[in-house]
Amino acid sequence: MPVSIKDVAKEAQVSIATVSRVLNNIDVVNEDTKKKVLDAIDKLGYRPNIVARSLKTQRSRTLGIIIPDISNEFYPEIVRGAEDVANIYNYNIMLCNTDLDPEKEMEYLRVLREKMADGVLYMSNSLEPNILELIDKLGFPIVLVETRDKDKKLHSVTIDNLKAAKEGVQYLINKDNKNIVYIGTHEDMANAASLRYQGYKKALEENNIELDEGLVSFGGMKAKDGYNAIHNILSNKKDIDAIFCASDEIAMGAINALRDKGIKVPEDIDVMGFNNIYSADIFYPKLTTVAQPMYDMGSVGMRMLIKSINKEELEKQNYVLDYEIVERDSCKK
Amino acid sequence: MPVSIKDVAKEAQVSIATVSRVLNNIDVVNEDTKKKVLDAIDKLGYRPNIVARSLKTQRSRTLGIIIPDISNEFYPEIVRGAEDVANIYNYNIMLCNTDLDPEKEMEYLRVLREKMADGVLYMSNSLEPNILELIDKLGFPIVLVETRDKDKKLHSVTIDNLKAAKEGVQYLINKDNKNIVYIGTHEDMANAASLRYQGYKKALEENNIELDEGLVSFGGMKAKDGYNAIHNILSNKKDIDAIFCASDEIAMGAINALRDKGIKVPEDIDVMGFNNIYSADIFYPKLTTVAQPMYDMGSVGMRMLIKSINKEELEKQNYVLDYEIVERDSCKK
Repeated sequence: MPVSIKDVAKEAQVSIATVSRVLNNIDVVNEDTKKKVLDAIDKLGYRPNIVARSLKTQRSRTLGIIIPDISNEFYPEIVRGAEDVANIYNYNIMLCNTDLDPEKEMEYLRVLREKMADGVLYMSNSLEPNILELIDKLGFPIVLVETRDKDKKLHSVTIDNLKAAKEGVQYLINKDNKNIVYIGTHEDMANAASLRYQGYKKALEENNIELDEGLVSFGGMKAKDGYNAIHNILSNKKDIDAIFCASDEIAMGAINALRDKGIKVPEDIDVMGFNNIYSADIFYPKLTTVAQPMYDMGSVGMRMLIKSINKEELEKQNYVLDYEIVERDSCKK
Repeated sequence: MPVSIKDVAKEAQVSIATVSRVLNNIDVVNEDTKKKVLDAIDKLGYRPNIVARSLKTQRSRTLGIIIPDISNEFYPEIVRGAEDVANIYNYNIMLCNTDLDPEKEMEYLRVLREKMADGVLYMSNSLEPNILELIDKLGFPIVLVETRDKDKKLHSVTIDNLKAAKEGVQYLINKDNKNIVYIGTHEDMANAASLRYQGYKKALEENNIELDEGLVSFGGMKAKDGYNAIHNILSNKKDIDAIFCASDEIAMGAINALRDKGIKVPEDIDVMGFNNIYSADIFYPKLTTVAQPMYDMGSVGMRMLIKSINKEELEKQNYVLDYEIVERDSCKK
């Protein structure tokens, strides 16, 4: 026979309602009584049936994390940061990989609602109107991480991608580079990475450098995209001084392509990454990069989510975290 | 007002019990009736309350995945493989990071039980008796991935780590290497990686090469562990021909240490990794490595778990998947 709430009440010599109040953290129980209840719980090894409780409280202490792909090196650190904070507050996380497929995203949102998830941490591209509508209809707390909703109505945590990229490109310009390649996703994508392209253009503009579209390559965010981009640009006999990449993986692929051609980094060409993933510091040459605080984005996002579940006031709708240029070996000193 | 099971029954002109039987896949409903119910569900957009159902059926369609650390590059692919299969069978996964802390592992097992998880995919070191006892007591289906229980009573999926490492070291010996360094975890750890050390010893033995303990370094599985190991071994003025590493990250750190000393890979020294993580193919030089099928380990493990939840017979207790030596550029051709 499992220990019941009744047994705990008997042991602590209080009412069942009092035990329930302690379990649900309702602050009307005095400290002495609370201690008696907690001692009784410990002594008897009582563990409430959380599923039954979630039906009653409409709380499951489970949170959804919707991400494109956990096997993309950018996400695991964010998820780890989020789970660590969730764990502190006694929440568990349900992990959902969507491959940025809006159908899958919507299906997961519905399933999370059915399983009474208390809230969702959401990473995607920009959110389409039908997804925003569904979020609104399902009505649970949601925090976006590095993801945009055009009207900025939802809570979010991000860095200032435009400013960060502009500063990264300025760093390359300050090293007397003029013909600077950009490799990333197209600005029409309206995601965090596309803001980096706007930052690139802004930096060129501020330094009176004309944009040369032959130096710009739009594609994916993976190493192979960087590799192919550089092969294409070099085969068009473009002179290049430096490469600004919207991700570290792109930078690694670009450097490998340069190495294939016998071009040295940073002696011949400076290359700069973005994100500062774990392997940026292991790659050769170690990547100079615009660092995003990935772990912090996950943990801050999760903290915001838990606050909004508890109806605590958030100081801001959108939290903008600090980025930082990490100087390593892929740019000239 | 959400659509209720009553509305569905009315629309399909059947009893509530019949709708319930269809929802719970109980095979006493004839096909025509079943179709009527499913059509009514589609038409009304009925979505059963899964939490309420899990109380009744004792099934939550949620599975736990217990891993050391999602931000370690080895695990995301396993988790992705597992989630993809879970998704096909309409299960969700709850992700639990333990940092190999047994207390955390036990706490997660308890929480997963309380939340009525239907089963657990478990990655850790060897399982301690008290954890095995708890698993037994909680009594849910469990599948181990790359994890050992001494008596091999639990279902598991793994590769033959001893044989794989032996073959890897033999590959190095075949290239006329004699003084071969081993970097990994101690064999007392009784985990998958420690079997690789046994494989290393076995290969030396079979080739009448005496084990030189000055060439063996036990520590963690990260790049910094490989880096430090090589610095130590070289500072003891050891002659080395090749390095066999229990992980790709160790191999990357070792190569970086050699590069610092002006030693070339593979011209001067062959280096071999283990696992074949995503960045093994991006690193310079591209790593020659013993490849584990990480994605498959996750997906096969998850398939086994779902089968055992459904009380389907598994052909084997322990599934041993194939490994493969992937030849790239960190060993001489």
